[in-house]
Amino acid sequence: MKIVVLKFGGTSVGTIEKIKKVAQIIGSYRKKKYKIIVVSSAMSGVTNELIRKSYAISKNFSDSEYDTLLSTGEQVACSLIAGRLIHNGFKSRSWLAWQLPILTSGNYKNSRIYHVNKNKILNYIHKGGIPIITGFQGINQNQRITTIGRGGSDASAIMIAKFFKAHRCIIYTDVEGVYTTDPNKLNKAKKIKIISYEEMLEMASLGAKVMQPVSIQDARLNRINVEVKSSFKKSSGTLITKRTNIISNKIITGISSTQNDSKVSLIGVRDKPGVAASIFKPLSKNSINVDMVVQNISANGKETDLTFTIKTEDLKKTKKIIENNKNIKFRKLFLKKDVAKISIIGVGMVTTPGVTFRMFQTLANKKINIQVISTSEIKISVLIDKKDTKKP
Amino acid sequence: MKIVVLKFGGTSVGTIEKIKKVAQIIGSYRKKKYKIIVVSSAMSGVTNELIRKSYAISKNFSDSEYDTLLSTGEQVACSLIAGRLIHNGFKSRSWLAWQLPILTSGNYKNSRIYHVNKNKILNYIHKGGIPIITGFQGINQNQRITTIGRGGSDASAIMIAKFFKAHRCIIYTDVEGVYTTDPNKLNKAKKIKIISYEEMLEMASLGAKVMQPVSIQDARLNRINVEVKSSFKKSSGTLITKRTNIISNKIITGISSTQNDSKVSLIGVRDKPGVAASIFKPLSKNSINVDMVVQNISANGKETDLTFTIKTEDLKKTKKIIENNKNIKFRKLFLKKDVAKISIIGVGMVTTPGVTFRMFQTLANKKINIQVISTSEIKISVLIDKKDTKKP
Repeated sequence: MKIVVLKFGGTSVGTIEKIKKVAQIIGSYRKKKYKIIVVSSAMSGVTNELIRKSYAISKNFSDSEYDTLLSTGEQVACSLIAGRLIHNGFKSRSWLAWQLPILTSGNYKNSRIYHVNKNKILNYIHKGGIPIITGFQGINQNQRITTIGRGGSDASAIMIAKFFKAHRCIIYTDVEGVYTTDPNKLNKAKKIKIISYEEMLEMASLGAKVMQPVSIQDARLNRINVEVKSSFKKSSGTLITKRTNIISNKIITGISSTQNDSKVSLIGVRDKPGVAASIFKPLSKNSINVDMVVQNISANGKETDLTFTIKTEDLKKTKKIIENNKNIKFRKLFLKKDVAKISIIGVGMVTTPGVTFRMFQTLANKKINIQVISTSEIKISVLIDKKDTKKP
Repeated sequence: MKIVVLKFGGTSVGTIEKIKKVAQIIGSYRKKKYKIIVVSSAMSGVTNELIRKSYAISKNFSDSEYDTLLSTGEQVACSLIAGRLIHNGFKSRSWLAWQLPILTSGNYKNSRIYHVNKNKILNYIHKGGIPIITGFQGINQNQRITTIGRGGSDASAIMIAKFFKAHRCIIYTDVEGVYTTDPNKLNKAKKIKIISYEEMLEMASLGAKVMQPVSIQDARLNRINVEVKSSFKKSSGTLITKRTNIISNKIITGISSTQNDSKVSLIGVRDKPGVAASIFKPLSKNSINVDMVVQNISANGKETDLTFTIKTEDLKKTKKIIENNKNIKFRKLFLKKDVAKISIIGVGMVTTPGVTFRMFQTLANKKINIQVISTSEIKISVLIDKKDTKKP
């Protein structure tokens, strides 16, 4: 029996009319040969309203009660979806995390699913039912409701797909799939038909907000084929799968850019072990996220230059930390606002010579100055002036 | 250990500010020697909004999903109350019906609590915790959420009080207690300090909407002392208890009146077995609620007159049913709109001669014509013209 997990995000179930649409999509799978398990988020806006209530009760609202409070959002959405499917003549019911149960470990507000009990759901599916399972939640060993910290309902869907050995996990959302670059910025943006986990991870961490990196990572570890597609349009989406499934001549899968970055350069840093750590440890402690890090080869064997990027909002704080920390030795500190990171991603790059050159040549032709370069196996990132990102 | 159950209704927890007030009330019990169990309804308006959603999904929404949907209302209220108590420095947590569990039987939307598992709650109370239990719900043998059909959260509180052998069950609501008559209609209305279950049952079914009759009946059967009081005012409420607990010289506990009643009289009905049934069966089938029923003694042994009251909104329907039903034989049909039922209630009446006479004399002095009289052990009801209810 081939099982497909269908996951619907908050915007997909955001109104009664959209829930009716979702029920149609679910019903349409019945004509295919798959058995279906549905996972749903809360209706969009509901979770924020509950958070607002908790904050009004206490600015330091209890974590365990927060999870019990928030979990009602998915419960409402799931009962409405099941109610609509029953209305449409299907056998369906909501399944709350505690009814399976879905078991979690870790802290409240930040738990992880470590086990999904399959028996009841398999039994229900065999009887022809369509189970609608609450995403974003589970119960811990104290039989209390916990919410999934990172990845939310996506993480629930991936873990359910894992335990049920699902053929595919389809993430229905408000975008049509993963694009080569942001379609709102560039008309040339094309929907990617198939992408590897690794490329998707690079795309995701670079700002393609289709799925959270932690969920892609879970899918990758468990080799689950994930399809991202729109709940509103009848087009095919993007399949995220393992590299060996991809037969493609394309060298480059996607292009991503970040905004609001700042560049920090420390000139004349001593070139000896532990120096980088002495700089990044205090930044990490202050929750400052360091992105690109580039260290040049030491020319004289004694001193080197270290450059990294941070979010511009952290710039002042970073300056203060570096200047006030006596353990960080350097000659000069350069700070530069308004830089942008442009990345090209593609598994084909590693085997195709000249990609880097072609990227650099293109930028040179447009008279765009490259400030920093950083490469990985499947990605090339360059730092340029923010104003240059809009050059045609 | 003396346990007190505190139950808060929807209006008592209707806003964040009211929930903060409720948390103060709960906290104040800690200064007394009692252990507390709290039962809460959903925030007022929330349940209706959920019902509206279910109706928008389907005019014939699944009963089981309806219960799962509605149960979120109490879950939200309980987590917010517990969150506020934790904020105030107390040990507290929400307890969802499935976490105890509270076991129900019967149909969805109309289940009854048959068992409350005490172990976890007793253990929690012994450790100094204040449990906040979701009212209006339980789980059935299929481990699905059901809602309590009649009595709602009041019924939950009474059953919890029963199983924990609570010293008292305090129903916090938006009124200050039970009054001798409707305080909105008559300035002379006085709050009743103590009332028997039986009197309260008569009061409740006559329109004193403080508690649902089924919950009063449950309290009576289990001999639970129930106090009704206001969440907003610091006055003592009304204690509902068994007759023998009441030492009172008062003959009459309360006066109640109904509005919007109509009187139906069938003249010349055959005086033989089964006639009344033949009249009331079709009315019952059409969900028409018959209130007072009076049948005079047959003068000639062959024919009698039958009078009953119904809600005015049902008058047309009733007329149609009676006229079109060939099984109902009578000579004349009289219909009269705008009648009112005035009742006086009091356990003292049964042992005090002359109460009936004094009521009738008072009405006669005011030139108010009595149309129908009906008496029980602790109640006298008369039917008068609606316009006469306003005579001073």
